[in-house]
Amino acid sequence: MKNFADNLVRKIAELDNPTVIGLDPKLDYIPEYIREYAEQLFPEEAAKATAKAIWLFNKEIIDLTCDIVPALKLQYAYYEMYGVEAIKTMLLTTRYAQKKGMLVIADCKRNDIGSTATAYAEAVLGNTDILLGENMEMSGFDCCTVNCYLGIDGVKPFIDVAKRDGKGIFCLVRTSNPSAGDFQDQELADGKKLYEIVAGKVSVWGEELIGEEGFSSVGAVVGATWPEQAVELRKLMPRTFMLIPGYGAQGAGADAAVAGFTADGKGGIVNSSRAIMTAWKARGMDPKDFGKAARLEALDMKENLNGALKNRKYV
Amino acid sequence: MKNFADNLVRKIAELDNPTVIGLDPKLDYIPEYIREYAEQLFPEEAAKATAKAIWLFNKEIIDLTCDIVPALKLQYAYYEMYGVEAIKTMLLTTRYAQKKGMLVIADCKRNDIGSTATAYAEAVLGNTDILLGENMEMSGFDCCTVNCYLGIDGVKPFIDVAKRDGKGIFCLVRTSNPSAGDFQDQELADGKKLYEIVAGKVSVWGEELIGEEGFSSVGAVVGATWPEQAVELRKLMPRTFMLIPGYGAQGAGADAAVAGFTADGKGGIVNSSRAIMTAWKARGMDPKDFGKAARLEALDMKENLNGALKNRKYV
Repeated sequence: MKNFADNLVRKIAELDNPTVIGLDPKLDYIPEYIREYAEQLFPEEAAKATAKAIWLFNKEIIDLTCDIVPALKLQYAYYEMYGVEAIKTMLLTTRYAQKKGMLVIADCKRNDIGSTATAYAEAVLGNTDILLGENMEMSGFDCCTVNCYLGIDGVKPFIDVAKRDGKGIFCLVRTSNPSAGDFQDQELADGKKLYEIVAGKVSVWGEELIGEEGFSSVGAVVGATWPEQAVELRKLMPRTFMLIPGYGAQGAGADAAVAGFTADGKGGIVNSSRAIMTAWKARGMDPKDFGKAARLEALDMKENLNGALKNRKYV
Repeated sequence: MKNFADNLVRKIAELDNPTVIGLDPKLDYIPEYIREYAEQLFPEEAAKATAKAIWLFNKEIIDLTCDIVPALKLQYAYYEMYGVEAIKTMLLTTRYAQKKGMLVIADCKRNDIGSTATAYAEAVLGNTDILLGENMEMSGFDCCTVNCYLGIDGVKPFIDVAKRDGKGIFCLVRTSNPSAGDFQDQELADGKKLYEIVAGKVSVWGEELIGEEGFSSVGAVVGATWPEQAVELRKLMPRTFMLIPGYGAQGAGADAAVAGFTADGKGGIVNSSRAIMTAWKARGMDPKDFGKAARLEALDMKENLNGALKNRKYV
């Protein structure tokens, strides 16, 4: 049976790289020569030109990293912001990256009550019956992020679709942002923090989707910016695969990023978005070499993470 | 200065109706004659036929309720599920309803960290610079729902856009679903429940957006299914406008639905989706009269809510 966590664990092992590249294509990140070319292609259609520029940018980064990076994370907001044409580009990017062998995660943080959660799960991971007797796969992502504030009946529909179609989810447990603690750190009557309660539930919810490699396709988002908490969370979620944002531009180093990995260095994947997309700027490289720069950055990140996994600072 | 809460309060007063209609157009809800007509229009394009059927359904309900109902709530998931063409229909529905005088709420429950929350806020409520020097209004909703699990830096971008553009948000405080309590009811060290802490924050966050009518454009989602809690929440959020789901199909009656309204019967709007959309079935009416049935249902709902507001059961 297809299991997302198994695919992810094996792909990471094959490439010896626990990295996911985030493609959050703000236009500012895209080199000017690509933007100008896209404008020339669609001089009267700004929305199409914008979507084309994003596509050319994404494609080059995928082409130059797909043999060294196991997964891609697309941040839904940045496509939605640029309109329907950009949403089409997001779907095109997903299919293209999958063809190139990458697993693709929708970072959409979806959440809603039962029947509507089912609609989201089918939209992002599954499929839907439409008219003329056809069935549509709207997005076809391999995995998506889910916000659990509504409790289990907002999450179960995602788990059901994940189980049926061999997909995965990452539940927000401890996010990487400065105000994550506003609610997540609230101390409960029994002395636990809220995010620990969420972690406990995520661990239980995931039991039925543990694959042959020992990890569940019901994963958790655990920010790299809170390494001590990540260590504790690993104890609460021994079989939970962790998606770890916050490395690089958000401030966390490699030591912190791998804090939640298991003792044998598994069970996590670390995201980098901005640092990969804008590597050509930081490295002072020619804009036309932005793909090469992304590759160099990804290779450095791989080395840093694997180095940190050999000498664990947070355990 | 344009203030969403003022517009909403005044529109409700003008029509004497604290109701919002939810258009969550599952194909099952759409009468067969419309589906068949749409299939005839696009016999080779199932996605376009599907989007067309949704549009014809939505338009008829708007046409037959816009003079009696102040607002429309579009559930993002049901459009996303049917693909990009259906997302276009969602945007078309928004603009059409606004032209007809309705305020339109995106029920999207968006959430993310700072910069990405900004992208969502601009996508749903605001606008974005794109190529060729153009600026795009992606959606143009008047208001949207927001999940606050990430704390203030995931919410402030929405508040900033709302302030700048005269838009509004409804923060999830106490949702209407059965498992809402999984996390929202967690008892904290100081004896309060988590949702009360969220409510307190929402009230404070909204202070800068209180309009002339006395309510803030930073509102709250408070499920009709928890009337005792709604009464308590009103005390914690005296100036917060409440979006109240859970009436009708989800089980709450009019008495429960108005529990969170202020003592003078203001500050809330009650949603009904399925019962309005499928009124023609429940009333045994001709499918071609689904719009009339929706209107009758909306009028009944108005009468029920106003009746409940005259004789408050929960105070």
